[in-house]
Amino acid sequence: MTAPLHEARPAGPGRALPDTQQGMRRRNLARVLHTVRAEGPLSRAAVASRIGLTRAAVSTLVDELIRSGLLEELGPERPGRVGRPGSALAVSGRGPAGIGAEIGVDHLAVCAVDLRGTTRSRAIRQGANRDRSPQPVLAELTELIRQVVAEAESEGLWPAGLAVAVPGLVARDARTVVRAPNLGWHDTDLGTLLPADLPLTVDNEANFGALAELWLGDGTPRDFLHVSAEIGIGAAVVVDGGLLRGTRGFAGELGHVPVQPDGPECACGGRGCLEQYAGEEAVLRAAGLEPGEDRVGLLAGRAAEGDEGVRRALRDAGTALGVALTGAVNLLDPESVVLGGELSGLAPWLLPSLRDELARRTAGPVCPVSVSRLGPQGPLLGAAHSVVRAVLDDPAAVARQA
Amino acid sequence: MTAPLHEARPAGPGRALPDTQQGMRRRNLARVLHTVRAEGPLSRAAVASRIGLTRAAVSTLVDELIRSGLLEELGPERPGRVGRPGSALAVSGRGPAGIGAEIGVDHLAVCAVDLRGTTRSRAIRQGANRDRSPQPVLAELTELIRQVVAEAESEGLWPAGLAVAVPGLVARDARTVVRAPNLGWHDTDLGTLLPADLPLTVDNEANFGALAELWLGDGTPRDFLHVSAEIGIGAAVVVDGGLLRGTRGFAGELGHVPVQPDGPECACGGRGCLEQYAGEEAVLRAAGLEPGEDRVGLLAGRAAEGDEGVRRALRDAGTALGVALTGAVNLLDPESVVLGGELSGLAPWLLPSLRDELARRTAGPVCPVSVSRLGPQGPLLGAAHSVVRAVLDDPAAVARQA
Repeated sequence: MTAPLHEARPAGPGRALPDTQQGMRRRNLARVLHTVRAEGPLSRAAVASRIGLTRAAVSTLVDELIRSGLLEELGPERPGRVGRPGSALAVSGRGPAGIGAEIGVDHLAVCAVDLRGTTRSRAIRQGANRDRSPQPVLAELTELIRQVVAEAESEGLWPAGLAVAVPGLVARDARTVVRAPNLGWHDTDLGTLLPADLPLTVDNEANFGALAELWLGDGTPRDFLHVSAEIGIGAAVVVDGGLLRGTRGFAGELGHVPVQPDGPECACGGRGCLEQYAGEEAVLRAAGLEPGEDRVGLLAGRAAEGDEGVRRALRDAGTALGVALTGAVNLLDPESVVLGGELSGLAPWLLPSLRDELARRTAGPVCPVSVSRLGPQGPLLGAAHSVVRAVLDDPAAVARQA
Repeated sequence: MTAPLHEARPAGPGRALPDTQQGMRRRNLARVLHTVRAEGPLSRAAVASRIGLTRAAVSTLVDELIRSGLLEELGPERPGRVGRPGSALAVSGRGPAGIGAEIGVDHLAVCAVDLRGTTRSRAIRQGANRDRSPQPVLAELTELIRQVVAEAESEGLWPAGLAVAVPGLVARDARTVVRAPNLGWHDTDLGTLLPADLPLTVDNEANFGALAELWLGDGTPRDFLHVSAEIGIGAAVVVDGGLLRGTRGFAGELGHVPVQPDGPECACGGRGCLEQYAGEEAVLRAAGLEPGEDRVGLLAGRAAEGDEGVRRALRDAGTALGVALTGAVNLLDPESVVLGGELSGLAPWLLPSLRDELARRTAGPVCPVSVSRLGPQGPLLGAAHSVVRAVLDDPAAVARQA
């Protein structure tokens, strides 16, 4: 597993594998595994008819997947079907698990997800990480990872890889945090500070949030823009079911799109960036509140109580988001915009002015804006599921590793 | 050739073809043709060693390509090489040609390009097409197409397809002009108004300009933003060597990115769109000039003479472009921005303020901005070459058609 686990890839499972006999076998292993996961329990004959291979070919592939612990036999199918009863196959509830981790400005979280997509273990620790150096933060995270892995192992799972979501820009090596202003980190190689025995992928929280939306959301299209926020505002661009990463891996920096070219100065060097109008701290300032730890909770609470100052600040933030998203929608023509991450908690007060602004600036049909059902869980789930997806997309790589 | 000829596709030739024995043969035909085109003249043995197939397999593929008129034998290679002399192969200078056409606001143009990439015939007609109905414009264009095809045929070529560049939004059916405000056309199916005997692809001029830059430019990266203009301002987003089209095919509408949210009203329904500051007519207005036919020529001429009003108007347009491009660069993280099409003629006066603005608003390394060497020829060349590329990427489709 040398390539980033969650790299954008063409539609079908395993399409990125080489165009050789060996590559074809690996793609077919992925097809069998994906089919059983999506439609199982299934007999070998049912899998064969669904993917258009012979029963004999499927049997060989299934045997390999059972040996690797990725599929399991549930025993003979219920009677009443035509022909000799086949043994029903299901994706294993033991076998490999994806370990997801999240470094938030105010918390750390880790979870383990099995091949069926079930979260099997989870650990969270609250506490401000702002301006702490990476070493103690990652030492704490490592503790949580060990705890979650031990729990998963006690249920017969083994960790296939670790994916870490961070609130910052990550280099295309999928290890180095180039800039995480709200943690105060830059050019930090997380690979040297995390357990060396797990294949590692680090990515921006907005990217993992978008992947969670793509994989676990309710009817999410394959082309959408995912907007999320902690203190900064990030976005992820999903095109044809894959992340658009950009040359350096920095695509999706919605927070620094200018919305008022002569507006207030921003830490990025620009003026009037979206973050100056719709970032959590900007909204708190506009509402006359002090930034504390549970910023979204504070704003949502006050807004729900009817605090007119907070409501007006959120309305203005929604308008600024609408201006920036008009630009993004004009450039990308996505099928929809999804508000996710911490931002989803403020959606009731942001959405009306955001939608108004988008509609006011759009001649034709307006791009629909929805709110993620995954909410703040998105990035952590996206991280864990990216490891699981990598196993499903190339089971042969994991079999070699097991 | 049912799919759009120039659809974004993965890196290798023919990668979109199905994963079957038949698909593998078609991909291998494409590999042979691309290899000879890039490195020819080459012997069969040289081709075999370059693409990693046996000499016998390559001979079969070469025979098929020669029968279809895509490759030709130049006769025995020069002596002095080791072994029995093989016959050198080259891409045919007869065989299929790509017919490109451009519907401009002030002109019509058509050209024919052979498989080697050489323009073999060309026709241009000046004249305002603004607010003319599609029928007479396309009747004139059809005349030019017939003329160019006849010239190409007299040199032993045959037209493999027709690609038409238009200054407007094109539906994903690659036939229907949804909206071309500067022609006054909307929902116009060009398929019914152009020669029915040629496979047709219609696309936005910015998209074809970007493809020309990708294929014919000097060291163009595989991830870039191409900005062009006639009266409107369009852009095309190239990601990993393919166009990002968007859900409806409308991606790249840079002209309607807001740069001053409270600025002047725009025909799109918005306010303060880039087009209100950097479109040709806005710049003419700002400079106190009347919009005529050769708008870019007029502006470039006056600016070169030192007209301070024109220079200031262009400087301000460059600043507005810089604001809009800051947003685009933050969202897409391209390797570079290329100014092409008619806009390239104004680059000397736009670029300084554009680059300043981008640098002022960027914390890290600034995204480089360059000017297309293809200039206003880009869209027409991109159209013709898109037909040629489609032949190179799937020669079997053309062989069946020939």
